[in-house]
Amino acid sequence: MTENGYHHERVLTVDTMNPRVKEVQYAVRGPIVLRAVQIEKELKEGVKKPFTEVIKANIGDCHAMGQRPVTFLRQVLALCTYPELLEDNKFPEDAKSRARRILQSCSGGSIGAYSASQGIEVVRQDVARYIERRDGGIPCNPDNIYLSSGASDAIVTMLKLLVSGEGPTRTGVMITIPQYPLYSATLAELGAVQINCYLNEEKCWSLDVNELHRALEAARKHCTPRALCIINPGNPTGQVQSRECIEDVIRFAAEENLFLMADEVYQDNVYAEGSKFHSFKKVLFEMGPEYSEKVELASFHSTSKCFMGECGFRAGYVEVINLDPEVKAQLTKLVSVRLCPPVPGQALLDVVVNPPQPDEPSHATFMEERTTILTRLANKAKMTQEILNQVPGIQCNPVQGAMYTFPRLNLSQRAIQEAKEKGQEPDMFYCMKLLEETGICLVPGSGFGQREGTYHFRMTILPPPEKLKIVLAKVKEFHQRFTERYS
Amino acid sequence: MTENGYHHERVLTVDTMNPRVKEVQYAVRGPIVLRAVQIEKELKEGVKKPFTEVIKANIGDCHAMGQRPVTFLRQVLALCTYPELLEDNKFPEDAKSRARRILQSCSGGSIGAYSASQGIEVVRQDVARYIERRDGGIPCNPDNIYLSSGASDAIVTMLKLLVSGEGPTRTGVMITIPQYPLYSATLAELGAVQINCYLNEEKCWSLDVNELHRALEAARKHCTPRALCIINPGNPTGQVQSRECIEDVIRFAAEENLFLMADEVYQDNVYAEGSKFHSFKKVLFEMGPEYSEKVELASFHSTSKCFMGECGFRAGYVEVINLDPEVKAQLTKLVSVRLCPPVPGQALLDVVVNPPQPDEPSHATFMEERTTILTRLANKAKMTQEILNQVPGIQCNPVQGAMYTFPRLNLSQRAIQEAKEKGQEPDMFYCMKLLEETGICLVPGSGFGQREGTYHFRMTILPPPEKLKIVLAKVKEFHQRFTERYS
Repeated sequence: MTENGYHHERVLTVDTMNPRVKEVQYAVRGPIVLRAVQIEKELKEGVKKPFTEVIKANIGDCHAMGQRPVTFLRQVLALCTYPELLEDNKFPEDAKSRARRILQSCSGGSIGAYSASQGIEVVRQDVARYIERRDGGIPCNPDNIYLSSGASDAIVTMLKLLVSGEGPTRTGVMITIPQYPLYSATLAELGAVQINCYLNEEKCWSLDVNELHRALEAARKHCTPRALCIINPGNPTGQVQSRECIEDVIRFAAEENLFLMADEVYQDNVYAEGSKFHSFKKVLFEMGPEYSEKVELASFHSTSKCFMGECGFRAGYVEVINLDPEVKAQLTKLVSVRLCPPVPGQALLDVVVNPPQPDEPSHATFMEERTTILTRLANKAKMTQEILNQVPGIQCNPVQGAMYTFPRLNLSQRAIQEAKEKGQEPDMFYCMKLLEETGICLVPGSGFGQREGTYHFRMTILPPPEKLKIVLAKVKEFHQRFTERYS
Repeated sequence: MTENGYHHERVLTVDTMNPRVKEVQYAVRGPIVLRAVQIEKELKEGVKKPFTEVIKANIGDCHAMGQRPVTFLRQVLALCTYPELLEDNKFPEDAKSRARRILQSCSGGSIGAYSASQGIEVVRQDVARYIERRDGGIPCNPDNIYLSSGASDAIVTMLKLLVSGEGPTRTGVMITIPQYPLYSATLAELGAVQINCYLNEEKCWSLDVNELHRALEAARKHCTPRALCIINPGNPTGQVQSRECIEDVIRFAAEENLFLMADEVYQDNVYAEGSKFHSFKKVLFEMGPEYSEKVELASFHSTSKCFMGECGFRAGYVEVINLDPEVKAQLTKLVSVRLCPPVPGQALLDVVVNPPQPDEPSHATFMEERTTILTRLANKAKMTQEILNQVPGIQCNPVQGAMYTFPRLNLSQRAIQEAKEKGQEPDMFYCMKLLEETGICLVPGSGFGQREGTYHFRMTILPPPEKLKIVLAKVKEFHQRFTERYS
């Protein structure tokens, strides 16, 4: 009792808080990144370290790693933000015409107004035309496009719709392992069952339909599997799935009555010879009406990756196919509670899907910037794989696409033992030591899931070529030192 | 069975979908707004109506209603978006220095990079200093600030942390009725119990602590009340709570062990003589350490309202006070899953909390624009209340603050009967008829909650003065016609 006569206890504690939130894990920004931020502060304060800077190769953040924004995108955005610039002759006409069109589609002519909750109609129309071009003319209805705050937002929303039941009727969602931890985090928060299906590391992280069957059968004993999530090109594994694999997945989803979620945010990031991006939608429609009129598919895209790398704007979309009309109405209602996705991001997305055409003044510069960025990424993908594979005890699949490598680490029993004594996963132990000794910040494979007894890390290919070379050399050196120390 | 040998059923239907999502309602963008959009399309297609345009007074969207963006805010944003403009002498130095400071605090110097999940550190520092100035020097720790995608995002996140339990241990959250439907929608989605406490319409929507006690006691029989949400200045009711009321609420929360959530997004929107905005934090700290060291408080703010009206940027923040450190770590983890709030919005928020100073070149223009906007709002608040109160059968409390009036409608038994026969709430019936006959889009009181047997609508005061006058005259005319028809 206090002097005021009441006894006050803390309301919100780890014991009383939402237990599902406690289950959430998100390795990409987990303890290793918190430590990296600390080390950066220590360096600033003059603490002596065996390195002079922290290099963050933990997150797919192109601009943070020095990639410059694409001029045309930012010109249109500046014009939308401060329309007085429409009178400025420094801005090209094609940028101005796009800005005018976007502003005309905003309430009150301002990107400061709310948009429709589903997103600005004009932007959804442009997205639909972009998808049609991408998929060789397969029709796309703008009504099936929902703009979002990054792809993450749309993925969470779709999972939210899918989750129901208790005990054996509880929704199970199949995800391929290693996975991007947004999926595991969201399923934990929603109280759904995560069903792990392992990618085949030996065959370049391909997906075998037998493994899907195995995982599904096992899961049916304790939950109700209702969806299957595929990331292609792959995060964290950097593979690009073959057309055959995608067909297999679609056939599997059709036969087993599963809702398909295709995370295709890296669709422009394909580097390897012989690899090609096949959208789930295109393959679905090319498989004929038997599939295209039945399989429920949600496909996600974003402005954060590809050549744009505009993560900070938080823009993305989902296209829903064969969604039940009543569920679609529920989806529209649900997104309306959060009012609308960020409008500057919607404007940015519009420019991404509606880039300068050959007869427009900005075309040459735009294409040059785009090509340079994608070519550099392709070169870095190759370099990464080559250098890492020179290290005894590291095996690395080709980085066919996306922005990551997920190499396998041979760790000695002594290293594994010491990690366990510290209560750490062996690859977390490894990455922490790497960070402390070299300043390089990677994410341990355990944050994404991996086959028991295997160890990995995820590293982005985003640092500039010269820096990436140094990073790879340091990793090589460290790995040799680490191997000797724990041999 | 199909010819391919499998039997395909739709996976996601209203019968199989997440039942909590079905419970969600959001009247501000509900059926009446969908109908308004339809009518707009009909008008465009040449369909004859008794009016020529739809006037949306349903949503607090300033720019959509013709308010122009504040020059300084947009200048800084344009500079951040397209830093080449930093060389342009058309932009004032104070705008440039702010843009440079923001860009330096972004990874890679780009607003296209992800920020820290909690928000850019410099912006959080500026927010903290703004709160300190607002609250007469009471300290604010930037570590307690979490930037968000509009205030809505932060409100949902805090509620997420608070929800737990089943049956009688299920979390109950007290909200004042009429409420902003983000709260009811989020509680439905999270499966928490909504505890209604009614504002006193007779006393200008003030909050009586006896009503809080009544609601709490009733709720304790079937759930575990853990939080109390207050919106001040009020949405949808436009009242500004007195300092005494806020003290009562804090004392109540302290005695009854409730987590306080103060939605203070309208803190600059105070118009009535004698009304003043008192932040919950300031009052809490002025009540002494007995309260200030114990009561857990989350206070929310946004760039969407006040003089800025920049809803489209989706920017906001929450300040957490006395939050358990372990829960705070969980909060940081939770927000990291969604990576970061939109960075352009964070930049905008920084300018809002760090406006031009008297010795800076943009000060005079900035102050003039700000004052003009707030003065016009004050005039419209007064006009709205005066005109509506002239209508027999409408009673309207003073619009002391925020952007809304929530007048009471006397509806005849015949009108109520006819609405019920159509399966509509009487005020929905009224608002639908108003929309069809006049093109004016309001939100029925039933979308916010109201005492049984009373009927209201929410109307914004945002249309330009001349248009607002027309809207009010049309509502007056319509109400008389409606009353005669159903008398």
